[in-house]
Amino acid sequence: MATNPQVLLIMGSESDLPVMQEAVDVLCNFGVAYEMRISSAHRSPVRTTALASEAANRGIKVIIAGAGMAAHLAGVVAAKTILPVIGIPMPGGALNGVDALYSTVQMPAGIPVGSMAIGKAGAKNAGLFAVQILALGDERLSSALQAFRAEMDRDVEQRDLALQAS
Amino acid sequence: MATNPQVLLIMGSESDLPVMQEAVDVLCNFGVAYEMRISSAHRSPVRTTALASEAANRGIKVIIAGAGMAAHLAGVVAAKTILPVIGIPMPGGALNGVDALYSTVQMPAGIPVGSMAIGKAGAKNAGLFAVQILALGDERLSSALQAFRAEMDRDVEQRDLALQAS
Amino acid sequence: MATNPQVLLIMGSESDLPVMQEAVDVLCNFGVAYEMRISSAHRSPVRTTALASEAANRGIKVIIAGAGMAAHLAGVVAAKTILPVIGIPMPGGALNGVDALYSTVQMPAGIPVGSMAIGKAGAKNAGLFAVQILALGDERLSSALQAFRAEMDRDVEQRDLALQAS
Amino acid sequence: MATNPQVLLIMGSESDLPVMQEAVDVLCNFGVAYEMRISSAHRSPVRTTALASEAANRGIKVIIAGAGMAAHLAGVVAAKTILPVIGIPMPGGALNGVDALYSTVQMPAGIPVGSMAIGKAGAKNAGLFAVQILALGDERLSSALQAFRAEMDRDVEQRDLALQAS
Amino acid sequence: MATNPQVLLIMGSESDLPVMQEAVDVLCNFGVAYEMRISSAHRSPVRTTALASEAANRGIKVIIAGAGMAAHLAGVVAAKTILPVIGIPMPGGALNGVDALYSTVQMPAGIPVGSMAIGKAGAKNAGLFAVQILALGDERLSSALQAFRAEMDRDVEQRDLALQAS
Amino acid sequence: MATNPQVLLIMGSESDLPVMQEAVDVLCNFGVAYEMRISSAHRSPVRTTALASEAANRGIKVIIAGAGMAAHLAGVVAAKTILPVIGIPMPGGALNGVDALYSTVQMPAGIPVGSMAIGKAGAKNAGLFAVQILALGDERLSSALQAFRAEMDRDVEQRDLALQAS
Amino acid sequence: MATNPQVLLIMGSESDLPVMQEAVDVLCNFGVAYEMRISSAHRSPVRTTALASEAANRGIKVIIAGAGMAAHLAGVVAAKTILPVIGIPMPGGALNGVDALYSTVQMPAGIPVGSMAIGKAGAKNAGLFAVQILALGDERLSSALQAFRAEMDRDVEQRDLALQAS
Amino acid sequence: MATNPQVLLIMGSESDLPVMQEAVDVLCNFGVAYEMRISSAHRSPVRTTALASEAANRGIKVIIAGAGMAAHLAGVVAAKTILPVIGIPMPGGALNGVDALYSTVQMPAGIPVGSMAIGKAGAKNAGLFAVQILALGDERLSSALQAFRAEMDRDVEQRDLALQAS
Repeated sequence: MATNPQVLLIMGSESDLPVMQEAVDVLCNFGVAYEMRISSAHRSPVRTTALASEAANRGIKVIIAGAGMAAHLAGVVAAKTILPVIGIPMPGGALNGVDALYSTVQMPAGIPVGSMAIGKAGAKNAGLFAVQILALGDERLSSALQAFRAEMDRDVEQRDLALQAS
Repeated sequence: MATNPQVLLIMGSESDLPVMQEAVDVLCNFGVAYEMRISSAHRSPVRTTALASEAANRGIKVIIAGAGMAAHLAGVVAAKTILPVIGIPMPGGALNGVDALYSTVQMPAGIPVGSMAIGKAGAKNAGLFAVQILALGDERLSSALQAFRAEMDRDVEQRDLALQAS
Repeated sequence: MATNPQVLLIMGSESDLPVMQEAVDVLCNFGVAYEMRISSAHRSPVRTTALASEAANRGIKVIIAGAGMAAHLAGVVAAKTILPVIGIPMPGGALNGVDALYSTVQMPAGIPVGSMAIGKAGAKNAGLFAVQILALGDERLSSALQAFRAEMDRDVEQRDLALQAS
Repeated sequence: MATNPQVLLIMGSESDLPVMQEAVDVLCNFGVAYEMRISSAHRSPVRTTALASEAANRGIKVIIAGAGMAAHLAGVVAAKTILPVIGIPMPGGALNGVDALYSTVQMPAGIPVGSMAIGKAGAKNAGLFAVQILALGDERLSSALQAFRAEMDRDVEQRDLALQAS
Repeated sequence: MATNPQVLLIMGSESDLPVMQEAVDVLCNFGVAYEMRISSAHRSPVRTTALASEAANRGIKVIIAGAGMAAHLAGVVAAKTILPVIGIPMPGGALNGVDALYSTVQMPAGIPVGSMAIGKAGAKNAGLFAVQILALGDERLSSALQAFRAEMDRDVEQRDLALQAS
Repeated sequence: MATNPQVLLIMGSESDLPVMQEAVDVLCNFGVAYEMRISSAHRSPVRTTALASEAANRGIKVIIAGAGMAAHLAGVVAAKTILPVIGIPMPGGALNGVDALYSTVQMPAGIPVGSMAIGKAGAKNAGLFAVQILALGDERLSSALQAFRAEMDRDVEQRDLALQAS
Repeated sequence: MATNPQVLLIMGSESDLPVMQEAVDVLCNFGVAYEMRISSAHRSPVRTTALASEAANRGIKVIIAGAGMAAHLAGVVAAKTILPVIGIPMPGGALNGVDALYSTVQMPAGIPVGSMAIGKAGAKNAGLFAVQILALGDERLSSALQAFRAEMDRDVEQRDLALQAS
Repeated sequence: MATNPQVLLIMGSESDLPVMQEAVDVLCNFGVAYEMRISSAHRSPVRTTALASEAANRGIKVIIAGAGMAAHLAGVVAAKTILPVIGIPMPGGALNGVDALYSTVQMPAGIPVGSMAIGKAGAKNAGLFAVQILALGDERLSSALQAFRAEMDRDVEQRDLALQAS
């Protein structure tokens, strides 16, 4: 983790780490400094509130919050900051993340959370969405994103060619 | 409302009033002092936290929280008090309360919320559940509840007799 | 199990035991005397009705009922007692507990059940919710709950610190 | 209603009457004697249990039970009789009958309920299903059902011809 | 299988056999003669139609039909007979039986199907429901069902006693 | 309707007419001869089977089938013809067409149905899909479809321009 | 793959191959020339658009598109061609294909996609549906389909006979 | 609309205007220049692609896309730009926006869309989320957002006080 993080990642529980790692990997690949914390909306509400309230003053630009079941974390964080908050609904539990999705995306008017898909795809996209926001003020990231898109396109093409050749 | 409320009702928005009124009516009928407040988990997080934190010291015994969509209110309140918190998922919105139900009932381990049904039936039952909790230490309420149950039974019987006679 | 149980746990089937154990563990940790019974709303209706009807006279304060699929147990029990009844929807079956959730939480007006989340998280919270209700009249439990909350908070902090150090 | 009813219809609430009437109309059309009662699994459990337990001795052959939300009525009745019990999930409430459907159809092994569709179509079919069961031992009903089927077929044909002619 | 079957079981695919076996086991235990057939509403429509049309003349009293996904089997069979048809929605596929449940239970007015729960619990109950229907005209089955109910009750009691003793 | 219809539309009930009309309007606009019939999979199974079996010999090229609730019509028709069958799940009923969608689209392997969206949008697209299939062997329809697409594009553009000007 | 393919299969990701193979197997069995490509609506939008736009001129008659989660592929392809497009919703992800189903089948009016069931059954049926469309102008395929239907019927009969004999 | 828009709003259909207006109102209140366009992913794919591709060069910073049913618009736009894309699932249709929600939020890994709630609450939050992103590089917007939050808090307080006084 970095001295001057631009992105703060908060997860509600240690068990969310494998999913959150997808977002971290993206930030690492783009050379974006981040800080990753464990803090629960319910079990450590004071520390969660503090993390959210102080983020902007510490130079954080974007917050990514991931939680499962009745996933209040992203909403609770969003209520305490005007930084953009990206939510990742965690899979698992009997409803396998539909509860987390509805708890994250169906925010009432006034306090927005930008929700990603449930689970690892959502976590990877959370990292990319954070980079896309940061790239609005960062030429280097903007170029890196364009290269990433071109690389994705080439990767699909390579797999397609391999399939044709098989 | 009363000088020494035993039940604190919090709703996320003024528009939840017609549903919350069902709980209030029950408390009135049983002569239970209550206080009803509007405070949002997202739009007024500081006041919501304060209401929850101070409730026990003010003599409150049970909290009823009603909210819609990504209904974080009951969970946010429950995280700041050890009083029993009863949640009422509000209907409305495109998902008509399924989102509020999942956001209220699917609380992760550690911070319980006792969820009622979506809407007015849930609100009435929230009032009754609060009375049932208070009745554990209040002989008068215990008797009143037994009378209420007998009355409900008689009411069903009357309607049944009327149907037979029709 | 204890001579003068304060909490009665009823499960519809032996197969619900691993989930119910989460509630039992909480009660044990808080030193709350309990009794755990197997009785089905459908397969042993007479004994279920008797358990519910006699609970208050035996000194029971709170009932926790867990059942799966068309989970009628909590509602059937609640109809025969004015004690607070906490429902745990069991996971499993083709719908993995959504049926049990709706059958437990969507109680019609008049007979409340306080529903927890589906499965183990819900069972643990059922135990905690029972303790929170009992703590209204028990200073020792009230202090123990506050200590439990502080411990949960510290536990999250420890895990967060470990993550920062890793 | 009739002196020696063969079919007992029970509804959980007076408000279910317009839906139950669809079943009654079918029974009337087929000349099947019936008795219709209001009794709730939750609000009048003793009377509901008695209705179910005594049905067989009174000469009842089939029971039709309709209830909404966490619809325990059909299951509670089925637990107290070995007569075939047909369930009608009532529409209405925030979930518009999905809760009633799951609470009616997802009965655990041991106590069957034959569930119909949610609402009026289900109620009409409940009446027909009862007649089909009774027809196993009643030549007149068997003939009447065959005539009813032929009439339905002709009715579709008439509508089709009218459409072609329009 | 028996010379003069009273119950006809039809499954849409060989893969449904482990679920259907639950119904067969019940029929065997109650000494009810049955016939079990594989026939698909879609892949062998002529034979399915014939099985349904001829069932009554062959002395069949009740038909049990189990199918998965867009489970049309029970409805297609019911359209060709006035015998009571019991549907078992099969689990499996991406929707794990919710599609089969809706395709079985949501029959339009006119042609009833009595739907059981998804999967093995539903299949066991299908067998029991068939026996309950047959018991209306069979004293022996009526007594056997009462014994079965008493046995189930005792079984729950035994498990409860074992739990108390553990 | 036409002497040599290329498209056969079947609806399960007269009440489906307003939705089916959307498909008819498309066929009219493209000058495709059609025949529209009312026939139910359940209430008039023999005529439904006959309509499907004889369609190919009568020169029909595509069948469009619309039904609601447990919508077996498209599947029953598809089982009796090798012509492409397009299904329209009808809205309405307590589940508002989710049941019809699952009953139409989740066909088991072997007998395909091409499902459209629930309701009027699906019906319009059913007409267009039929035209697209017919256009494979009909130059005039192919040109007409291209013109239709261009017109749709222009229509969006006009509305966009109007919005800019407002 | 073939020199003059009649069917173009596009999948959004290499991981969809095991499902798509079911469609390919059908085309092979019927001797229909096909081309299978990997191209994503999101990661390689230009190539996806080109594949769709050029398909008709290359002699393609039918396009089969399979994708998962927010499955835009079939719709994006359908927007760029007047050939019939068949969609296969892929299972997997936290919602196991319900998201892919809704994203595929719920196309707004104007651009139809014929959706199959989620997963392998849907893929097999996609292949069959393509053959049924091609058979409208190909006597050989028409005969082959009739033979295939007869074979399926016989196969069910064989399994039924084996069950009777067991 | 403005000469140098910072936010581009695209809706799939004119009928989405009342919902989109909620986002526009927010942008107006914050003095953010915007451009609102009608363009469909399916009916005008070329213009949609052009709008997305050229947005960054025209100085657009954030894109808001709203569409209903199988809502591909946000994903199709996101695939053609590295600007942050915010999706608004439109309510309406038989599934009332669940289809649009899944089609918007469940984006596969690689191309993120930040999804808001279904309907007007989501649209208002989309406007706010865009402002929060723009505020990262705009001191004036940052202050305005803080004022907006304080105003929301005060508004809740006023309504609470009015309720206490009533």
